[in-house]
Amino acid sequence: MPETGSETAPWPPTVIRVRYAETDAMGVVHHATYPVWFEVARTDLMHHLGLPYRDVEARGYYLMLSGLNVEYRRAARYDDELRIVARLSSVRSRTMTFTYAVLRGDELLATGETRHIATDQTYRPARLPDDVLSLLQAPGRARLPGT
Amino acid sequence: MPETGSETAPWPPTVIRVRYAETDAMGVVHHATYPVWFEVARTDLMHHLGLPYRDVEARGYYLMLSGLNVEYRRAARYDDELRIVARLSSVRSRTMTFTYAVLRGDELLATGETRHIATDQTYRPARLPDDVLSLLQAPGRARLPGT
Amino acid sequence: MPETGSETAPWPPTVIRVRYAETDAMGVVHHATYPVWFEVARTDLMHHLGLPYRDVEARGYYLMLSGLNVEYRRAARYDDELRIVARLSSVRSRTMTFTYAVLRGDELLATGETRHIATDQTYRPARLPDDVLSLLQAPGRARLPGT
Amino acid sequence: MPETGSETAPWPPTVIRVRYAETDAMGVVHHATYPVWFEVARTDLMHHLGLPYRDVEARGYYLMLSGLNVEYRRAARYDDELRIVARLSSVRSRTMTFTYAVLRGDELLATGETRHIATDQTYRPARLPDDVLSLLQAPGRARLPGT
Repeated sequence: MPETGSETAPWPPTVIRVRYAETDAMGVVHHATYPVWFEVARTDLMHHLGLPYRDVEARGYYLMLSGLNVEYRRAARYDDELRIVARLSSVRSRTMTFTYAVLRGDELLATGETRHIATDQTYRPARLPDDVLSLLQAPGRARLPGT
Repeated sequence: MPETGSETAPWPPTVIRVRYAETDAMGVVHHATYPVWFEVARTDLMHHLGLPYRDVEARGYYLMLSGLNVEYRRAARYDDELRIVARLSSVRSRTMTFTYAVLRGDELLATGETRHIATDQTYRPARLPDDVLSLLQAPGRARLPGT
Repeated sequence: MPETGSETAPWPPTVIRVRYAETDAMGVVHHATYPVWFEVARTDLMHHLGLPYRDVEARGYYLMLSGLNVEYRRAARYDDELRIVARLSSVRSRTMTFTYAVLRGDELLATGETRHIATDQTYRPARLPDDVLSLLQAPGRARLPGT
Repeated sequence: MPETGSETAPWPPTVIRVRYAETDAMGVVHHATYPVWFEVARTDLMHHLGLPYRDVEARGYYLMLSGLNVEYRRAARYDDELRIVARLSSVRSRTMTFTYAVLRGDELLATGETRHIATDQTYRPARLPDDVLSLLQAPGRARLPGT
């Protein structure tokens, strides 16, 4: 059950509280909010890996989105406290994939995946430097259960 | 090439101009904007099918998202004029799938898909009424090329 | 200096970390994000007052915005940790005003105000019940310095 | 009635249709959407003045927000067609002010104002070049009624 394995991760999960602005006229969270939450959890994960994303940009790289999937199972509501679990599921020199789970207590609300391509700041694909890759691949990844 | 076949659709494509608020610090459109644009094109498509989504809600139904995919090929920028092409690719009594293409001139920027489940307004799956289904299935769909 | 007086408030300040999606192509936070942060801090403040906003809605009322002001002094950036200080500066039976300050460390980034009108759920102005008003007016307000 | 004087402006008004993502759980448009609409109308206005904002940035300047006011009178709903009227109400060498009205048919939903400061791309206040100022001040402004 990789989606609910956050308890065993070596760092605290990302916790967010649903903002009113994130809801829509159906009374629940708008679906385009989930990729934003994924990004919040990705930011936290990269901090935990010792590679804050802002430092990646400061060194001249972007990790641009090449693909996004979300599966919605249950709706989230205003003021719900949610955990967002992010994992880095694959890393190559120019691409990487993260997976996500959104939980309310033990209830799985959504899962997702983002695929990224490393580029320079003219948006051209670029190989990430070795020290960046090694932070992404180890020991951070080795400490991640189920990836 | 279903993605670029909008020229043959029986109605004008959805045209949007990129808003500044839709960009991010990479200088291009943030990826979570694309599902919002898909929704704009879906609204237009349902108007063209004679079934405005607001009327679906007025009759007591929601078409909630159960799945979302986006493939990003090229970045969009502030003030770009884009066409969003939406198609209804499958309809059943409780579920439906739309596909999308985002174009800047002849250049394909992104493609995507949204999967929906019909619910009542307590968020329980519900069978859509026959007259709603027939508007979604024909003649509207029959007039849609490539679906 | 009411803007920076959060240290003396009887509850912890609202802390947020800037999301990438909140930035724009200028490289800093988009100005329309600030009212969203104000709302996050207002949600927290109402929890602290013993009157969660979701309970206000559950009882049949909305606190709709009638006015918004923001003064922007310095830009916020991706991944900045910010404190948002909210205060309830006036309460009447049908209207209320909140004021806000956005801080990065000791640096004041922005201040703002939101004015609200209480309505029923058909959006008509409505007098708030006495028990709601008393939670908003005392002892909560009495504990708020500088308001 | 400067708010409704768009009929006499020498260019077509900005027309937008309310997006579902712009609504919130109150069933109406979230208040933080209005500054985004103002920005859309400001973009259009600057095109009409012969000074597209993207060109301002390409020349090395930003027009950053220093202040925002919105007065909300009536709520907008999903799928409403709205006109956003923008005017440039004052221009100096480093600052300018725009005013806005949001209309649904003849009904005034909201008014607002944004105050801007010209900066270079390190966010330092900067004097706009004379040719930029003259486009902002005349003949465009001269053709604007009530400003």
